[in-house]
Amino acid sequence: MTDPQACHQRFMQRALELAAQGRFSTAPNPMVGCVVVADGKIVGEGWHQRAGEPHAEVFALREAGALAKGSTVYVTLEPCSHFGRTPPCADALIKANVATVVVAMKDPNPLVSGEGIERLRANGIEVLVGILEQQALALNNGFVARMQRKRPWLRVKMAASLDGRTALSNGESQWISGTDSRRDVHRWRAQSSAILSTAKTVLADNAILTARHPQAERQPTRVIIDSQGLLTGQEAIFKEPFPIILVHAPDTPATAVERDWPAHVECIMVARTNMRHVDLTQLMHELAEKQINSVWTECGAQLAGALLTAELVDELVLYLAPKLIGHSGHGLLNLPAFAHMSQVPELTLKDVRQVADDIRIIAVPRRVRGDLTS
Amino acid sequence: MTDPQACHQRFMQRALELAAQGRFSTAPNPMVGCVVVADGKIVGEGWHQRAGEPHAEVFALREAGALAKGSTVYVTLEPCSHFGRTPPCADALIKANVATVVVAMKDPNPLVSGEGIERLRANGIEVLVGILEQQALALNNGFVARMQRKRPWLRVKMAASLDGRTALSNGESQWISGTDSRRDVHRWRAQSSAILSTAKTVLADNAILTARHPQAERQPTRVIIDSQGLLTGQEAIFKEPFPIILVHAPDTPATAVERDWPAHVECIMVARTNMRHVDLTQLMHELAEKQINSVWTECGAQLAGALLTAELVDELVLYLAPKLIGHSGHGLLNLPAFAHMSQVPELTLKDVRQVADDIRIIAVPRRVRGDLTS
Repeated sequence: MTDPQACHQRFMQRALELAAQGRFSTAPNPMVGCVVVADGKIVGEGWHQRAGEPHAEVFALREAGALAKGSTVYVTLEPCSHFGRTPPCADALIKANVATVVVAMKDPNPLVSGEGIERLRANGIEVLVGILEQQALALNNGFVARMQRKRPWLRVKMAASLDGRTALSNGESQWISGTDSRRDVHRWRAQSSAILSTAKTVLADNAILTARHPQAERQPTRVIIDSQGLLTGQEAIFKEPFPIILVHAPDTPATAVERDWPAHVECIMVARTNMRHVDLTQLMHELAEKQINSVWTECGAQLAGALLTAELVDELVLYLAPKLIGHSGHGLLNLPAFAHMSQVPELTLKDVRQVADDIRIIAVPRRVRGDLTS
Repeated sequence: MTDPQACHQRFMQRALELAAQGRFSTAPNPMVGCVVVADGKIVGEGWHQRAGEPHAEVFALREAGALAKGSTVYVTLEPCSHFGRTPPCADALIKANVATVVVAMKDPNPLVSGEGIERLRANGIEVLVGILEQQALALNNGFVARMQRKRPWLRVKMAASLDGRTALSNGESQWISGTDSRRDVHRWRAQSSAILSTAKTVLADNAILTARHPQAERQPTRVIIDSQGLLTGQEAIFKEPFPIILVHAPDTPATAVERDWPAHVECIMVARTNMRHVDLTQLMHELAEKQINSVWTECGAQLAGALLTAELVDELVLYLAPKLIGHSGHGLLNLPAFAHMSQVPELTLKDVRQVADDIRIIAVPRRVRGDLTS
C-alpha cells in the first residue's frame, strides 16, 4: 500500500473497530480506539473500556513497548491533555517518543477542543487531523451531542403493522413485531445511556424497561415521565434495582412526588410547556447534565409526536411487522393536523433492512433542533 | 460445464430472460422464451412478442435453420399442440427433427396441459420437464392464475407516509411518494392487463389511470367500480380512448347505466354482497373471462380493505415515503376491528427496497383464496 491516505484510512478503520468494542460500556465517556504502527505494521492496539479505567492510548502504547519510539499512532479521538481520573494521554504519547499522531476527530468539548493536539505539536510530534472524521463522529454521536448541543442523542423506537398501527382498537399490542426485532430492541437498549418512556406506557405493558441481551454490560437509566403522578412504586419496573428517574411537573400531586421512593429512584421536576407535556427540551438538557449521552425512547403516539414536533428526535427506529391491523387500530404518532403536504415532517432514510420477518427502518428527521453540522 | 443440470439451468435461464422481453406486450398470451442449443452452443433464440404473432419456438427454429436437427431446445412453457391463431409449435419441433426438448413448466390450462409433451414424445423426441419451474411460474403468474384459478393475479398498490397515512385530514395526498416511485407505478401499470379503481378515487384525483412509461407498449384496461353511478362520462379518464370497464351494481341508478357511453366504455353488472361492495370475487371471475391476466389496483382504504378481507390480494405493493402525517391523516386500510392479534391478516415479505427516497415493500398475504399451490 503506497498511497499514504489509503494507508491512514486503513489503520484508522482498525482503530474505529477497536473503539466500537466499548459500545456497551464506555458511557458517559466516548468510545476511543488506538493503533500504534511501526514500519507499516501494527505493534500495539487498545480501546477504552469504561470510565475510570485507562484510555485507549495507554493500552496501545503498553503493547507496543519500545517499538512506540518513532511510530505513527492512530487514535479515533483527540488525546486528552488534562488530568481526569487518569493522567493525560498527550503526555503518554510525548513520553513514548512517537513521531506522528493521526487523529480522526477533535475533542467535541468546546472547552478543551484542540488542546491535546497543540500539546503534541508543541513537543515536536507531527499531528494529522480528520482521517475518517465522519465515522468517528457517528460512532460517538451521543457523546458529541451532549458536548456540543447539551442534550443527548435521541432515538425514538416504534413498532407497528405495515399500515402503521401499534395496537388493536382494544389496546392489544403484544406481539406486533417478531422475536428478532425484540432482541434487536434489547441490543439498542443496552447501548443507550437511558430509556425514556411514560407512566402510561409502563402501566399499560407492566414494562420493566431493562436491557435483556447477552451483550448488555450494564443497565440504562430508566427515565419515566409521570406528570400526573400515576406510579405508586409498586409496579414491576421498581423491582429491578437499576436507576430510575421519575419526571414530575409542577402540578404533579404532592402525594406522588413526596412518596417514599426506593433508593434507586430519583425524582426531578420539569416545567410544563403550553402543551400537555413537560418541557421536553428542558428535560433533555437535564439528562445531559446527568451525563446521559444517548436516549432510547419507547412510548406511545402522544410523546413520540411531541418529541418530533419539538424537533428533538435524531433518529426514528421503526419496526414494521408484516401484518395489517386496519383503520380502527391505534396510530403511530399524534401530530398537528397539517393543511398542506409541504408542512409535514420529512425524514431521510438512513438504513432499511429486514430483521427476520420484519422491516427495520432508521430515518432521520430533516429538521432537528440545534442539529450538529457534521 | 459438465454438470448437465447446471447446463440445463443456464440455457433455461437464458430462455426466461428472452421470455421476459414480452412483459409489456404478450398478454393475454403468456410470455415464452426459447433457446436452441447444438453442440453446447446457442444457435437460435426467440420469444413471443404478442398475441397473433409467431410463438417463441418458431423464431428460435428459424434462426437455428439446419442446425436445429438433433439439437436440444429449451422452452419456458410446454409447446402448444393445437391450432390457434398460429400452427402448433409441437409440430414445428417435430418437423425440425430436434432431439430433446427441455420444458420449464407444463401448460397451466388444465384442458390441454401435457398434450404438447405427449405429442413430442410420441414422435421420438426426449422431453424433460420442470427445469426452473418456479421461475417460469412466477414469470407468468397472471396467465397461470387466470388458467388455474379463473381469476387474475391481483396486486394492490398503496402509497403512504412512514406512519401509514395516505392523505392529510383535508384529503390532500399529492405527492406523498417521490417521482421515482411514481415512475415505478407507471411501469407496473404498463405490465398489467387491467387497472382497478373506484369512481371515488377517479373523482378525487381526476385520475386518468393510463400507463405513462417509455416501455409501455399499450394501455391496460381501466376497470372502475361505480356502483353509485357517480361518473358522468365527462371526466378526464374518458378522454383517453383506451378501454374502460365500468362496474355497476343491480341498484345503480338506471340513468348512469343507460347513459350514452363512448365506444371504448363497456358497462358490466356485478351483484352486491351483504357488504357495501359489489361481489369482488365475481368481478375477478368476470375479468378473467375477459382474458385479463393481471390486475393492478389503485384505490382507497375501503376497496383495498375489502379486497384483503375477501382474500383476493396476491401482492400488496406499498410505497412508504419518508414523511410523517400523524393520527389525523387518512388510514391505509379499512378492516374489521379484530379482538386478538392472532386474527389480523399476516403477510410474507417478498421484496423490500429503496426507490430513491422511498421504500417499496412487496408483501404476500398468507391467506389467498384458491391460492396456487406452487
